[in-house]
Amino acid sequence: MRKVYLDNNATTRMRGEVLEAMLPYCKDIYGNASSIHQFGRPARKAIDGARADVADLLGAASAEEIIFTSGGTEADNFAIKGVVHALRSKGNHIITTAIEHQAVLNTCKFLEKEGCKVTYLSVDKHGIINLDELKRAITDKTILITIMYANNEIGTIEPIEEISKIAKEKGVYFHTDAIQAVGKLAFKVKDINADLLSMSGHKIYGPKGIGAIYIKKGTKITQQTHGGHHEMNKRAGTENVPGIVGLGKAAKLAKKEIPEEYKIKDLRDYLYKGITSNIEDVRLNGHPEKRLPNTLNISFTYLEGESIILNLDMEGIAVSTGSACTSGTLEPSHVLTAMGVDAVNTQGSVRFSLGRYNTKEDMDYVIETLPPIIKRLRTMSPLYDKK
Amino acid sequence: MRKVYLDNNATTRMRGEVLEAMLPYCKDIYGNASSIHQFGRPARKAIDGARADVADLLGAASAEEIIFTSGGTEADNFAIKGVVHALRSKGNHIITTAIEHQAVLNTCKFLEKEGCKVTYLSVDKHGIINLDELKRAITDKTILITIMYANNEIGTIEPIEEISKIAKEKGVYFHTDAIQAVGKLAFKVKDINADLLSMSGHKIYGPKGIGAIYIKKGTKITQQTHGGHHEMNKRAGTENVPGIVGLGKAAKLAKKEIPEEYKIKDLRDYLYKGITSNIEDVRLNGHPEKRLPNTLNISFTYLEGESIILNLDMEGIAVSTGSACTSGTLEPSHVLTAMGVDAVNTQGSVRFSLGRYNTKEDMDYVIETLPPIIKRLRTMSPLYDKK
Repeated sequence: MRKVYLDNNATTRMRGEVLEAMLPYCKDIYGNASSIHQFGRPARKAIDGARADVADLLGAASAEEIIFTSGGTEADNFAIKGVVHALRSKGNHIITTAIEHQAVLNTCKFLEKEGCKVTYLSVDKHGIINLDELKRAITDKTILITIMYANNEIGTIEPIEEISKIAKEKGVYFHTDAIQAVGKLAFKVKDINADLLSMSGHKIYGPKGIGAIYIKKGTKITQQTHGGHHEMNKRAGTENVPGIVGLGKAAKLAKKEIPEEYKIKDLRDYLYKGITSNIEDVRLNGHPEKRLPNTLNISFTYLEGESIILNLDMEGIAVSTGSACTSGTLEPSHVLTAMGVDAVNTQGSVRFSLGRYNTKEDMDYVIETLPPIIKRLRTMSPLYDKK
Repeated sequence: MRKVYLDNNATTRMRGEVLEAMLPYCKDIYGNASSIHQFGRPARKAIDGARADVADLLGAASAEEIIFTSGGTEADNFAIKGVVHALRSKGNHIITTAIEHQAVLNTCKFLEKEGCKVTYLSVDKHGIINLDELKRAITDKTILITIMYANNEIGTIEPIEEISKIAKEKGVYFHTDAIQAVGKLAFKVKDINADLLSMSGHKIYGPKGIGAIYIKKGTKITQQTHGGHHEMNKRAGTENVPGIVGLGKAAKLAKKEIPEEYKIKDLRDYLYKGITSNIEDVRLNGHPEKRLPNTLNISFTYLEGESIILNLDMEGIAVSTGSACTSGTLEPSHVLTAMGVDAVNTQGSVRFSLGRYNTKEDMDYVIETLPPIIKRLRTMSPLYDKK
């Protein structure tokens, strides 16, 4: 059976070149990068190179603005808690959105219990925040605005430059969870003017268990993981040398290939056209244009997304209802709910997230496989019956 | 030139079997373990297997007591901060020792700034705590005793069972940083009666960037990394599947081979005998018997450890002055200082930490190479001159 992986927003297949780059550090170059002897020095050198490559991908002013973490979630936690700790004397108010990833939302919820005030901005029907609402939300106690670059479920791209402009005018730090944007969109941190930015390795064909946080020089942030003098005293723990090297390689490749990667959009639009030509009562979730090139979130009205993905799985097609990080819960997507999507559509959403290994043949297979599944499920759906 | 790696307490060479076990998860089995489709399920299954293997190595009652982290430092941070948060209403007093690893010490120092009281127990000349001092330190505000199983610099093994007995009698949680003990000493968490225990992958011939925390069922602990529902809602972040699989494999191998691994002691004692037969004014740091089988910490009186390791490095021998995590600082070892080692000896300490790949020939090479280096350095030493 054909296998079609369309869950690249959950994780990507690591590139062969990335694994090749990592292997020497899994074998002969095994030293601790903090050791000063000949087993440690090449590991240190490799980390320095990877840091420069990540800085280059993000357009950072210097490599020292990049701190490696164990992944995107740790980067988000570090950014938000680190600023809250560092600016405690200034205020305790955070502004975020209702559609953030759980790594941001649950960090904010935790901080609310610790005495922080959090404003969750609403979004419009396409998932875009309202800049006037943002402006009105800022008080003299606001210490951080944390808004994702692009949404993981629907792909909608937020107006990051306008947000950071407002943040700068008000003297408030701006953090963006760019985990889904990095490697898919061409940008430079100096242009978007973020103070802090989170990214992850395994979303850009790199390794799992590694990520990075960009911290603009001079940004006040309190260390969250305490121990040795690693990562310029900002994040303790023996450096994950192979992971860091892999992230560096993935970043280097991404930098070069973003324009090519963007062409996934044509394949995605071909898939969308194929689906809508053959299936009725379909709703596109997310902004029609301001959207990640690889992401297609569709509600099949009156159906349960879970049933659709299980049926597609049996045909070798891997998709998801939304975030992998919230799978196992039966609650409707907080993103679709925040966008005001009605009940008959929130349950039936399916996210197709494409990647560099997908082909037109993959899309044809989905376009061919999906209609009979939807038809069969709707035959059994009491909701569709009542339509 | 012969290369002799004697810095296994800093990090170990990953075993070939571990890399072999990881590779499929770096290639074809790349799914997100939280995805419910066919790309996610084998990743989930692999994690379950690794969790069982780590639980087996530690002698945990169930696999659910094992939570994967990004390493030993995160495990130490999680254990200490997690208990402090969870038991805030009960008290704010922590008891630890003066000779802990930085991951514990600096976490405690951070918590002191946040309002915690911390008692740093003293140690005797061999680096062992005083149980009466421990008993006296416990108050009704004490919520955690965190004492390392075995010291990373000198190898001294603390009286863990007696410590946990005292903790249990007083109803105080006991955490042990067992990062250097796991894989070297045979023990079961149910026997040592720890509530929390930290371990690391790369110290047991496993991967860097992965570790685990044992949390006894029922132990109150607050999550420290917020986000998705990973690791039974105790630690958020996409699972590092290859790292977890590698840790599982390393744990499985360690379990089987601890008795064999313990034979390193003979090689270490052979090295010690060879050194002391040929060099005078040498001091053994750490307990003569209650010590990790692989660790030999020696002070070459009147010398600087840094000079010795640089000279040995030029001969292909990798050793360290102490913890890799504190390298780069010129301060004398906090461990030796706490043991009351005098100034002419604290500066000249060198840690030889052996591993499974070392041979008798390696030891002979060190025994042959070291004396002329020490002799030359002492000729140049103004301190030795005044002796």
